[in-house]
Amino acid sequence: MLMNKTSAEQIPTIADILTAQQRIESMIRTTPVLSDPTINNILGCELWLKCENLQYTGAFKFRGASNAIARLDELGVVGDVATHSSGNHGSALALAASNHNRRSRIVMPDNAVKTKVDAVQQNGGEIIFCKPNQQDREKGLAKLVNESFIPIPPYDHADIICGQGTAVVEFSEQCADLDIILTPVGGGGLISGSAIAAKALIPGVAVIGAEPAGAADTAHSLELGKRVDQYPIDTIADGLRAIVGVLNFTIIQSKVDKVLTMSESGITDAMALIWRHFRMLIEPSSATVIAAISEHPEFFAGRKVGAIISGGNVDLAQLPFKP
Amino acid sequence: MLMNKTSAEQIPTIADILTAQQRIESMIRTTPVLSDPTINNILGCELWLKCENLQYTGAFKFRGASNAIARLDELGVVGDVATHSSGNHGSALALAASNHNRRSRIVMPDNAVKTKVDAVQQNGGEIIFCKPNQQDREKGLAKLVNESFIPIPPYDHADIICGQGTAVVEFSEQCADLDIILTPVGGGGLISGSAIAAKALIPGVAVIGAEPAGAADTAHSLELGKRVDQYPIDTIADGLRAIVGVLNFTIIQSKVDKVLTMSESGITDAMALIWRHFRMLIEPSSATVIAAISEHPEFFAGRKVGAIISGGNVDLAQLPFKP
Repeated sequence: MLMNKTSAEQIPTIADILTAQQRIESMIRTTPVLSDPTINNILGCELWLKCENLQYTGAFKFRGASNAIARLDELGVVGDVATHSSGNHGSALALAASNHNRRSRIVMPDNAVKTKVDAVQQNGGEIIFCKPNQQDREKGLAKLVNESFIPIPPYDHADIICGQGTAVVEFSEQCADLDIILTPVGGGGLISGSAIAAKALIPGVAVIGAEPAGAADTAHSLELGKRVDQYPIDTIADGLRAIVGVLNFTIIQSKVDKVLTMSESGITDAMALIWRHFRMLIEPSSATVIAAISEHPEFFAGRKVGAIISGGNVDLAQLPFKP
Repeated sequence: MLMNKTSAEQIPTIADILTAQQRIESMIRTTPVLSDPTINNILGCELWLKCENLQYTGAFKFRGASNAIARLDELGVVGDVATHSSGNHGSALALAASNHNRRSRIVMPDNAVKTKVDAVQQNGGEIIFCKPNQQDREKGLAKLVNESFIPIPPYDHADIICGQGTAVVEFSEQCADLDIILTPVGGGGLISGSAIAAKALIPGVAVIGAEPAGAADTAHSLELGKRVDQYPIDTIADGLRAIVGVLNFTIIQSKVDKVLTMSESGITDAMALIWRHFRMLIEPSSATVIAAISEHPEFFAGRKVGAIISGGNVDLAQLPFKP
């Protein structure tokens, strides 16, 4: 019932990511890449945004979910799927499952952003609410697995990592000679896949992660030289509250050049900046990459920076910045 | 001081629009074209969105303004520029002027959307507020012309029409075999340029306009067979409150197949629909094209529809739909 264990826990190669790219190409949207001269002046670098906020389900997560479900099909594994998620992975999995004629159940914390709850339901997912802590989320999922749902984890899985890495495959084709690939860091699915793809496809590129100071478990783990499995979490970036995954951390240790942290006000200011200059509402988790540049300009000055805007699932009723 | 009169009042040809396209190519953003399988199911047609909401200044208006200013450069006309505008043309002109080292003054109604007021200022435009009626707007502009500002009208001008038409030149290259080009109708700059380009570049295409029932001066003028210069205006679509221009109406009469009208609730429902499925906030004026499909499905059923999303300058503090 579970996916191939060896494959799931093995560090993917660039070949795995390119295979994933071919596998999901027709399922996902090739998201646009945008730049803006005014914002380049403000930030002091040449910034290119890979707009995964415009991906189906409003987040890059649809790449990983599509890849994981398509792999189940390939392996001939039948059955419905389940996961726990604060929202974007859940919504992505719900749509990917529907697209492949599978049902899905999503364990969600009861403080999840309303937009994300609505999106899971709209995409055909059935929600099981739980208390907003890791233990309750895992307990909820374990119960579903007992009922023979196939668990699709949000980040700590090779198929998910490969799917997320396809964003950088596309990005490298759309935008030549990037000096830096910059992504948010939560559970580490996006940055680990991105790092494998970037280091293989873009000569001389640096890979930098952006993590809220209020959820800096990865930056802290890198300093310690080992993954911590607990960290006091306090950030508005609801998509980045997870502790970095085991497989993800191993990849980050070997492939990511730096993880920068940023303040909460830096994150909300960055949301306002992107709204003002691109007329896109990006979620706080995505705004970390812009805040990373504002708060650590020395890493980016004069460089050609490719930033992945990870999602746009903002709660319109509770915007955390003054327009 | 004024632009070449003959050229300004002459109906542009496709050659003029292709020249404009080459002229402004490096100044504007090639905006993305997006589709969504779920929304196609809901609307019953194959819908492609040309996302001018992601154009610089958040609206297609930057195309026309850039073309008009670049033409002044070509003709060797020196001096600062002025216009009256409820927002998008003003903001576009302000940025285009700044980019070409000219100052700009924008006469704006004192009930203009705050986001649009901020955008004009952010782009270096100086605002002169006036009462929200056509007479006061024109009086304000006349005063500036007396002070030797060069007037750049928002739509009733060949250079503006040519600039706006470049959106369809791009669209036809990005998306093959469109059955219908669908755009909002306000002053008529976008639809007249689009119609000239579409009829020349897309074999067999129909051009359809979307106009709020509360600002249906163009639909009414088409019925009468002559342009009305007054109409009771009552619509949330702040970008479409203008009366159709003289040159624009002549072009619409000969090149546009149909102008459809829609209800106010249709417009706000359409904003919600696009937010839900694309995670883009589009302004009410833009949402008319989606409302046109919802309220008149018989014109679109099963067709490949290219809709221009004209702008994304929404007032976040006053969203007219429940997220």
